[in-house]
Amino acid sequence: MTKTLLAAAVGAVIGLSSFSALAAEPVDPIEPVEVKNPALVELGKMLFFEPRLSRSGLLSCNSCHNLSTGGVDNLKTSIGDYWAQGPINSPTVLNSYGQIAQFWNGRAKTLAEQAAGPIANPLEMASTHELAVQVIGSIPGYAEHFKKAFGDEKVDIGRITDAIAEFERTLVTPNARFDKWLKGDAKAITDFELKGYQLFKSSGCMICHNGALLGGQSFQKMGAVRAYETTNTDEGVKAISGRDQDRMTFKVPQLRNVELTYPYFHDGEAKTLEKAVQVMGDVQLGKRYTDEETAQIVAFLKTLTGEQPKIVLPILPPSGPETPEFNPWAPKPDAK
Amino acid sequence: MTKTLLAAAVGAVIGLSSFSALAAEPVDPIEPVEVKNPALVELGKMLFFEPRLSRSGLLSCNSCHNLSTGGVDNLKTSIGDYWAQGPINSPTVLNSYGQIAQFWNGRAKTLAEQAAGPIANPLEMASTHELAVQVIGSIPGYAEHFKKAFGDEKVDIGRITDAIAEFERTLVTPNARFDKWLKGDAKAITDFELKGYQLFKSSGCMICHNGALLGGQSFQKMGAVRAYETTNTDEGVKAISGRDQDRMTFKVPQLRNVELTYPYFHDGEAKTLEKAVQVMGDVQLGKRYTDEETAQIVAFLKTLTGEQPKIVLPILPPSGPETPEFNPWAPKPDAK
Repeated sequence: MTKTLLAAAVGAVIGLSSFSALAAEPVDPIEPVEVKNPALVELGKMLFFEPRLSRSGLLSCNSCHNLSTGGVDNLKTSIGDYWAQGPINSPTVLNSYGQIAQFWNGRAKTLAEQAAGPIANPLEMASTHELAVQVIGSIPGYAEHFKKAFGDEKVDIGRITDAIAEFERTLVTPNARFDKWLKGDAKAITDFELKGYQLFKSSGCMICHNGALLGGQSFQKMGAVRAYETTNTDEGVKAISGRDQDRMTFKVPQLRNVELTYPYFHDGEAKTLEKAVQVMGDVQLGKRYTDEETAQIVAFLKTLTGEQPKIVLPILPPSGPETPEFNPWAPKPDAK
Repeated sequence: MTKTLLAAAVGAVIGLSSFSALAAEPVDPIEPVEVKNPALVELGKMLFFEPRLSRSGLLSCNSCHNLSTGGVDNLKTSIGDYWAQGPINSPTVLNSYGQIAQFWNGRAKTLAEQAAGPIANPLEMASTHELAVQVIGSIPGYAEHFKKAFGDEKVDIGRITDAIAEFERTLVTPNARFDKWLKGDAKAITDFELKGYQLFKSSGCMICHNGALLGGQSFQKMGAVRAYETTNTDEGVKAISGRDQDRMTFKVPQLRNVELTYPYFHDGEAKTLEKAVQVMGDVQLGKRYTDEETAQIVAFLKTLTGEQPKIVLPILPPSGPETPEFNPWAPKPDAK
């Protein structure tokens, strides 16, 4: 530990005096997104906040990916329609673009493909793509928005999810203190936080948590050096590949705004960043961080909190005469 | 009917040529609200969107009083924590200030008193005032907001509900087409809509639905001339007064933005404005409106939709080490 700390301290001293060169770091700053089709983004925002995409008419994308709270629900696993208990922790929608894949097990290649999932998942929004299209298509006020976004009024599931994805692509959080430091503002983070960053690098976290998002770029086994104990039954990538060796392999979560996206891990079992850092050190790196080291890394991680997107709540058009009725207490339809 | 229509038509002609005098109408326009304590309003907005006020950590005031959808959830009755089935239709939070009382049975005198209700109602947010205060008081980032709003950091239920009420007081919807007409813009509503207004007045609706909100000023029996049939078991004011004659007496709902606040009545049984107008004519006035008359009144009612408040979604501070854990699947606590 003394050695590591010393190395980190030396790094820190160097960092404070000369770390203005971006190229030296394995992290890129988050940059604002250029919006090419504002009408598509606006439609996507409406659909992201649209409770009528759920069978009950209560839950929207924003229910579990709440933009008031870091793009997550801060629950261990999410609540679905009919108060269903979700199987896994909701990842943040912030900076979700530009990952190797979506979902913990990577089963969606794109944000649009991801957005299609929860709508039809019986444990989430519990609707179907057919019903979602019927509902949105029956709301007269959406027609002009689809026309502006796509050129005509046609509603289909591809357009719905493309629009949501285009909105999500704008949900970036630039100007985190760490990004300011990356861009040359040596005073943007403290010596203590910088020590945490050096330790984060030197002790191996950055092997997986790198790139602009500090993660989201690879799949790794949870429990690389020591088995991770959990009561959560999710099998990770194995559920997709069917291969035994993929059990407990998950997409490496990104760490942007990680201060806001508690509780941590696919099972939501780590309530605090301190706990998450210590467990990661233990099961992924075979390392027991001291309390001081843990505090340093946590301090660094908190410098990754960026400016949250400024969202003006969309006003949704009222249902029309053909809109199916919502009855949240109708018998739950069979799982598809 | 012919007579009524003729009378309305004559009124319409007069209206189009000379109805620029505000004083002549028993309705006042909705005016923007002057914000005296912006910090209190901002805190109130945060708390209005705060899911940690519910026991599960999922539901906020905005879940049932959704500002994307006219300040309501557009459900027959609302969904509470643990998917509880609410007993009554959620009234809109828009323009909710300035009514004789709050709730359908008037059991709260003020908006602040109203806001305290759902937090502790087992069928709504299912928390307690003690737990709500503990939760909000344990979130470090709220301290500065309470200090700015109230002068010091103390958190209590009175301050929580005062802040929510102050935010709600700003949720007004000015510049409805009808208000523009009231202010002298004769072209703001069509002849057909004006006929509807004249009929609304001449046939007695305005005896109860008057004032700036076209309602919210008195309690009336639902079924004044003919019993209203419903399977909903809510007894109205009787539940408060204990007096048999108050059974089925409710606060007259306001009609601002009524186009958006479907379904209608305390039981949410009227899915459309057409149905609501016809049932009201029948059970309150002993009148059978023709389809044409109904269409006129509905057209008038749609001129009451104002500019929806422009709400920038608040960013909520993360929980602290002392914040109680949320477990939406813990056994439901006993009803209080």
